[in-house]
Amino acid sequence: GTNFNNNCSFGRGVRSVVVVKAEAGGVSSINPDVRKNEEKVVDAVVVNELSKPVTPYCRCWRSGTFPLCDGSHVKHNKATGDNVGPLLLKK
Amino acid sequence: GTNFNNNCSFGRGVRSVVVVKAEAGGVSSINPDVRKNEEKVVDAVVVNELSKPVTPYCRCWRSGTFPLCDGSHVKHNKATGDNVGPLLLKK
Ligand code: FES
Ligand code: FES
Repeated sequence: GTNFNNNCSFGRGVRSVVVVKAEAGGVSSINPDVRKNEEKVVDAVVVNELSKPVTPYCRCWRSGTFPLCDGSHVKHNKATGDNVGPLLLKK
Repeated sequence: GTNFNNNCSFGRGVRSVVVVKAEAGGVSSINPDVRKNEEKVVDAVVVNELSKPVTPYCRCWRSGTFPLCDGSHVKHNKATGDNVGPLLLKK
């Protein structure tokens, strides 16, 4: 979330304190950057075309190789206290 | 980032207006509720066990049937202006 503290005082002894905190997981969008020109980002995987024993797919919307996971969820979790991770497709 | 506008004036005809807007995709967590007792939520799908021709998996962290998609991304997108959608696994 966002923490905001403002101390603003004018005139004789006037003091006003405003604290606003944006709730984590509130009304924010969760996809900051991925294909924002698309109305809805849906991807399809034809599972019998998977080449590796395990292929991780991104669910954090922070991967530089979206729809694949590139490990960026680790940084997101650290920065926000979140606990998201990928979907692993196993052959 | 966070957008913040503050107009602060005191004295006769005191008027104070504070507008704080948290930017979508800021420092918030994206998973409000799913298995918050787990340090990292990772799921595995053994693809040759899929039964249907197409199975949608959730990437919005709002599904009542997570890790499957139950369509909840539609409500999330409407409420926030976001554009997230599922990963479709196709046999
Ligand atoms: S980079 Fe997004 S889940 Fe790993
Ligand atoms: S319910 Fe989450 S992507 Fe559909």
